[in-house]
Amino acid sequence: MTANETATAPAPYPAIGRAAAPPAGPDARAPRRGRPGYDLESLLAVAVEVFNERGYDSTSKEDLSRRLGIAKSAIYHHVAGKEELLRLALDRALDGWSEVADRAQRLDAPAIDRLEYLVRGTVGVLQTQLPYVTLLLRVRGNTEAERDALNRRRDFDRLVADLVQEAERDGDIRPDVDPAITARLLFGMVNSLVEWYRPGRRGLAGASPDGLAPAGSAARGSLADAVCAVAFDGLRLRTPE
Amino acid sequence: MTANETATAPAPYPAIGRAAAPPAGPDARAPRRGRPGYDLESLLAVAVEVFNERGYDSTSKEDLSRRLGIAKSAIYHHVAGKEELLRLALDRALDGWSEVADRAQRLDAPAIDRLEYLVRGTVGVLQTQLPYVTLLLRVRGNTEAERDALNRRRDFDRLVADLVQEAERDGDIRPDVDPAITARLLFGMVNSLVEWYRPGRRGLAGASPDGLAPAGSAARGSLADAVCAVAFDGLRLRTPE
Repeated sequence: MTANETATAPAPYPAIGRAAAPPAGPDARAPRRGRPGYDLESLLAVAVEVFNERGYDSTSKEDLSRRLGIAKSAIYHHVAGKEELLRLALDRALDGWSEVADRAQRLDAPAIDRLEYLVRGTVGVLQTQLPYVTLLLRVRGNTEAERDALNRRRDFDRLVADLVQEAERDGDIRPDVDPAITARLLFGMVNSLVEWYRPGRRGLAGASPDGLAPAGSAARGSLADAVCAVAFDGLRLRTPE
Repeated sequence: MTANETATAPAPYPAIGRAAAPPAGPDARAPRRGRPGYDLESLLAVAVEVFNERGYDSTSKEDLSRRLGIAKSAIYHHVAGKEELLRLALDRALDGWSEVADRAQRLDAPAIDRLEYLVRGTVGVLQTQLPYVTLLLRVRGNTEAERDALNRRRDFDRLVADLVQEAERDGDIRPDVDPAITARLLFGMVNSLVEWYRPGRRGLAGASPDGLAPAGSAARGSLADAVCAVAFDGLRLRTPE
């Protein structure tokens, strides 16, 4: 089974990054519920929005309570504090990445295919968990939650760098660029999507997330295909031999 | 004359983005000087550092005066206020980009070569003006200075998109990815360098800025070469025909 065959299987995708959970739906991880209007999931969605707009450090409890339209005490019905919201939000993005990474590593396929699977999966997580990934990519490490997130990010970066190196040893990746730089450029491109990708917007890859679509299928339609086409094969057109 | 021939000419480079101006050197644009310790140039360098660390909105006049070790009034010996420092800083990065853009447009070369020149030049500006470009890329548009900067950024983005489209019409760029997306992915990759590139750091493209070195020259040594190799030709190795 190749990476692409695995990637086209319909079942695994919706689970990645908990994409299928509706923002205000029931949340199995939230025992502390009961407050009308918000459950932990919908509270988190609003908190992440405010964190992204104002920056986590600049967001006060007052900012959160004002935006939510509930008293501060009602927020802490759900979570112990602002940092717990941050941690839950960062874990949401990181769990998505971890799940993709685990799947990629389990593939019985060459390193370059596992790398492509990782890129497609990460684009998919970004598309379905955009506010959470955006928050993660802006983390500076001022709190323990942020430092833990940075450590998990570093594990992910190491996996990418290892895959690039292995693919280079296999002779599948250009040897004239340092593998560490190649890895950073590749995920620099992927992560830059948070700057402009907006779900639902037509015309600029705002189509529904299809990050795990098979390679080579209508790149005009899929953001992951576009990323892989440019990253793996370059934007310069080659005349067919 | 091709884009690459132009790019190898030694003279134009140092002028781009005022790369050659030492941080604390004399500044012809600063008539309001006289305060010992800081001229406008060195004041700006420290202010940008603080803006990048704390975010512009969260930086108070007190933060600036504490970091500079001078009274608030001494800062306003040089500039009218915090926003003037922001405007000067953003213009520094944008002037660098504009200069590269003007040179690229004046080249008597196919669109794809002008595009590559633009990428190399932009990488060069990023390397020599890293704190200023970092600040520019984080701008949200909360002040007039930021909104003006975003307008200038949009002009630049439009030029990139036009070049990509022209190169696609020339048959030099892959037609299976929307030109607008190609343009964003390309500069997403370039701009992501601010996340990890640190001048002077060896091993990870920390070599001296050589963004306008000729294409194909030791990509292991030049960051611009690495970016162009991955972006234009892709990271997948092609077996030579």
